[in-house]
Parts: sequence; C-alpha cells; structure tokens
Amino acid sequence: MSKVVAVAHPNIAFIKYWGNQDDALRLPSNGSISMNLDGLHSQTAVEFSAGLAGDELQLDGGVATPEQTQRVSAFLDLVREMSGVTSAARVESQNNFPSGAGIASSSSAFAALALAASAAAGLELDEAALSRLARRGSGSASRSVPGGYAEWRSGDDAGSFAHSIAAAEHWELADCVAIISEEHKATGSTAGHALAGTSPLQAARLAGAPGRLDACRAAIERRDFATLAEVAELDCHLMHAVMMTSQPGLHYWLPASLEVMAAVRGWRAAGMAAFYTLDAGPNVHVLCPESAAAEVAAGLAELPGVLRVLRAAPGGPARLLSDP
Amino acid sequence: MSKVVAVAHPNIAFIKYWGNQDDALRLPSNGSISMNLDGLHSQTAVEFSAGLAGDELQLDGGVATPEQTQRVSAFLDLVREMSGVTSAARVESQNNFPSGAGIASSSSAFAALALAASAAAGLELDEAALSRLARRGSGSASRSVPGGYAEWRSGDDAGSFAHSIAAAEHWELADCVAIISEEHKATGSTAGHALAGTSPLQAARLAGAPGRLDACRAAIERRDFATLAEVAELDCHLMHAVMMTSQPGLHYWLPASLEVMAAVRGWRAAGMAAFYTLDAGPNVHVLCPESAAAEVAAGLAELPGVLRVLRAAPGGPARLLSDP
Repeated sequence: MSKVVAVAHPNIAFIKYWGNQDDALRLPSNGSISMNLDGLHSQTAVEFSAGLAGDELQLDGGVATPEQTQRVSAFLDLVREMSGVTSAARVESQNNFPSGAGIASSSSAFAALALAASAAAGLELDEAALSRLARRGSGSASRSVPGGYAEWRSGDDAGSFAHSIAAAEHWELADCVAIISEEHKATGSTAGHALAGTSPLQAARLAGAPGRLDACRAAIERRDFATLAEVAELDCHLMHAVMMTSQPGLHYWLPASLEVMAAVRGWRAAGMAAFYTLDAGPNVHVLCPESAAAEVAAGLAELPGVLRVLRAAPGGPARLLSDP
Repeated sequence: MSKVVAVAHPNIAFIKYWGNQDDALRLPSNGSISMNLDGLHSQTAVEFSAGLAGDELQLDGGVATPEQTQRVSAFLDLVREMSGVTSAARVESQNNFPSGAGIASSSSAFAALALAASAAAGLELDEAALSRLARRGSGSASRSVPGGYAEWRSGDDAGSFAHSIAAAEHWELADCVAIISEEHKATGSTAGHALAGTSPLQAARLAGAPGRLDACRAAIERRDFATLAEVAELDCHLMHAVMMTSQPGLHYWLPASLEVMAAVRGWRAAGMAAFYTLDAGPNVHVLCPESAAAEVAAGLAELPGVLRVLRAAPGGPARLLSDP
C-alpha cells in the first residue's frame, strides 16, 4: 500500500465547542461554528505497512511521546475497523505553526490524519463521513474537513459532523493571531472538555448556544461584521467563564492576552471593525475584514507581550497532496 | 444641632453582591458575606444647619461633583424623612485609601454617613436599622455597619440588612491588597448592578448563591481556610464572568491583576494558605492567615505591575467619634 499525504488547516471557532455529551465518541454538548485558517496547516503522511510491529508516529520531525502515539493508534484502529486493513502504519505529521498554545493544532492534525489514513487504507469517504471520522480524533477536527466557514452540529454519532455554511471566498475576513506564548498549555483540551460539566455556568452556556449559533450563521451569510463581533466575543467569554469556574479552574489567559483584548475593545469603540476570540490557550485571535488586516496586525505587533503576529485568510477544505 | 463624626471600614466580600431585585431600594438579588478591613476607613462628619441653602459635600478635602452631592443629598432625604429634620446638611468625608479602584469605598463612606447623619438628626437606630439605612446609599455599605465578618441577607426592605456572623477577633485573617491602579473605574458599581441581568450567566450565579453562602458561613465559623479559599475564589470568578458577559461587557481586570491571580494560585498549589478575590476594579485582595501576611505581602510587592500593598486585619463595626 502506498504512502498518502494530506493537508488540512486549523480553524478558529466563533461559537465554541466546550464539553461533550459523550467523551469517548466526542459528541459535543453544543454545536459550533468556525473559519478555516489558510496559510496555517498540518501536513500528514500515512503508510500502512505489513512490516511494522506497531504504529509509528513522527511529529514535527521528532519521535512522538507514548501518549501521542497511543492517541493516534486508537484513531488508526477506527480506520482499520472501517477498511479491513490490519497492518500497522507509519505516520509523519508536521505543523507550520506553534502547537499547543490555543491555535487548535489538533483540529488540523486529525483532519489531515483522517483524510490521509482513510485514503491510505483504500476508503473513499464523502465529506460528512470524513468529518465524522476526524471528530473521533479531536472534536474540532470535524470542522477542518469542509472548506471555509463550517458548522459542526451536535447530535448522535451519525449526525454529528461539520458542513460548510459558506465557502472561503464568500467573505474576506482575516485572522490576525497575536502570539503571546508558544509553550504547551498545562491542561489540554481533551482533559478540559471533561471538566466542563463541573462549572456552575456550563448549563447556562449550553442553553443559549442555539440562539448564538443562529445569530452567528446569519451574520456569516449576510456578511454582518458587527453582529459576528458581538456574538463571537460573547461566546468566547462564556467559554472562558466556564473554564475558570470549573473545578479545578482552568485559566488560559496570560496578562498579555488581557492587554490585547482591551486594545481590541478600544479599537472597536473607536470605530475599527475588529473582535477577538481565544481558544484553550493564551493567544488572541483578532478577526477583521481583510481590508483592515494590515492595520490590525501592525497594531497588535506594537502591544507589550505580543511575540509576533500570524495572519490567515479563510482556508479551504482538507485535501490530498497525492493519490493512493 | 451639633456636628457628628463617624468612621467605618470598607469590607471585602467573599460571597459577592452583584445585581439587584430592586435598584431603587438596593435590594440585592443574592445574599453576601464579607470581612471589614481594619486600618482602612472613611471618616464622615455631618452637621444639619438651618443656615444652609442646600446640602454641601466635601470629599477628601475637595468640593464633590454635582452627581456625588446629588447621591448624598438623596440619602440625607431618607434621614430627614425618618427624623423630621428639615434643614440641609454640611457633609465632609475622607478616605485613607484610594477610592474607586475596587476597594469598596462606597461601603465605608455610606456606612459612616448613615451613622453620622442619623445621629446628627437625633435618631438612635439599632444596628439592623442602621445597616438597612446604609444599604440605601450603597448596597455593600450595609455590611460595613456590623463588626468583623458580616452577612447581608437578601429579602424585602425590612428584612435586608447585615449582621455579624463572627467578631473580628474570631479569626485572624489578613487582607493584603495588591494595588494595581488608583484610577477611578470606568463603570461604577451602581451602573454595573443594573447590567447584571443582561448576562446569560447571572441566573446560574444566583441559583448557586445559597449553597455558597452556607459553605462560606460554615468555613468562617469553623475557621476552615481551605474551604473559604475554594468558595470565595469561585464566587469571585462567577461575578466577573457575569460582568464580562453582560451587555455591554464590564472588564475590570488589568494584565497585572491576572499576574497576581496566577501567582496566588501558584503559591497555594505550593502549599501556602492564600486566595484572591476582586471587586469591581483591578486591585487584587489576597486573603491569608495573619501569620502568613508578611510573606504574602512581600511576595505581592515583588510582582510586576503591583504599585504597593495595603494590609488589613478584620475590622470592627461603624462607630461614632463624638456624641451629638
């Protein structure tokens, strides 16, 4: 069997995923909406080979930890089960952006892995099936399978996958990511999701999610930046409120994150179209129309504590680089 | 009629007051528990005088703004109504700590004013009546009337006042206040309370308040620091979650606030008995046993962004400095 290479973009969620109905199946407690990030990607090569004693994983050129290998191996078991392939695989994956600091590297990594592994195993999955499979590796990976702006529905195992609600070309937004730290976060998302239910605020966050999803979807369809800014910033604060009040509390913001957030609110109050959102990490994603991105990125770079600024346009779907 | 002078301490709440059932009567949406802060105080002199054309207010030696004078004048109207006094009053108030930056100066100011004004008007109010009156000026002022550790009950106008659940001597805690900013906050508490109901999280915060009050009260009665730390830090985060998700959002934390909060969590993880809480401002109150206060205060003073550290022991009740 031949080696297959796939690439996928990470995504930034405007309506966040935090907490599962079913941890093992990664069925989310609420739906979510995101934008893929062009320019940032994971590239993953998979080759099933009868000669291997067990699955092997290289990450960014180095040998992966036993925990990482175990997580990928469990994912490959799903592919083997679906395809009838029984051999082990060699997996090589690399990101062109820092992992583990709030840019959801697991989203692009498992979307690329789902595509590369399923193709290497001879499966031809449609987008929904691929998104459903990617979800089993990392919930947010389901949203990195379709292109552009994607909505991942909650539901049962069969019904919980992401679809594109608008292509990348529909709306020229930019994500200017203020990098505050490139260190690996103390509590990963998988462990964090399991704590969501311990917050006294999670139920209230979930109760309002359908309304926020409707507002966000409509704002994207109508290219209504002000509404998107309002609902996405609120949704980000709701997720971090749940994180900070879970037991134990999860605190992802750093002082410089707060500096950036306050600056962005100030810019918006002064008339600039920009809003922020943060995933489970300290880096601050600042969204704006593409026309304002140079100004926003320059402003961010001047703020104390900002190491550098990444800039991404709406990205396309996960895709194969070579056919099996 | 003679001039009467009263002093009262501000208090720091372990279970927070945020949002009213009735804004005009300042009937809180939930009960709260606090500790008075010895060493910090408001001192307020009141003299009713037939010769005055209207109420006059001096604050910290300067002439008060029309808004401040109007708020005090409306409060004096309550005292005039209760006492039958009809003349205007001259009020001089000063704090020995920075006002408006998260140390609840309105708590000590209105507690001292309630006591001085009622005494100057010839009223002899018992503690409950005085607390009820102080509440009308500023909700948290109700808790600065009784001494030590006080609980302010929600309820109707007659039933909503604070009483002491333990005297100051019951438990030698220290409040080490890391001063981050001495600027006046952008949104005062009165305006903030009115926004509490716009947060999707306020109902959940309120639903859990009775349980947190029970846990906090019991922790104080048993001098159980670990339980007090857990419930007070959670309650602080719940209030700030409501603030940040109200519409518009209220953001009181500064980057250095976050720096202090993370340091305190780190110290506690390393075995030190300390927890933090923040009111509607950026300054961080770090509570610890008196025996650890020197170490905590020294540690705080070394953190970036901390201008200085105030230190307070549990304080007594509001009291008169001279009899009418």
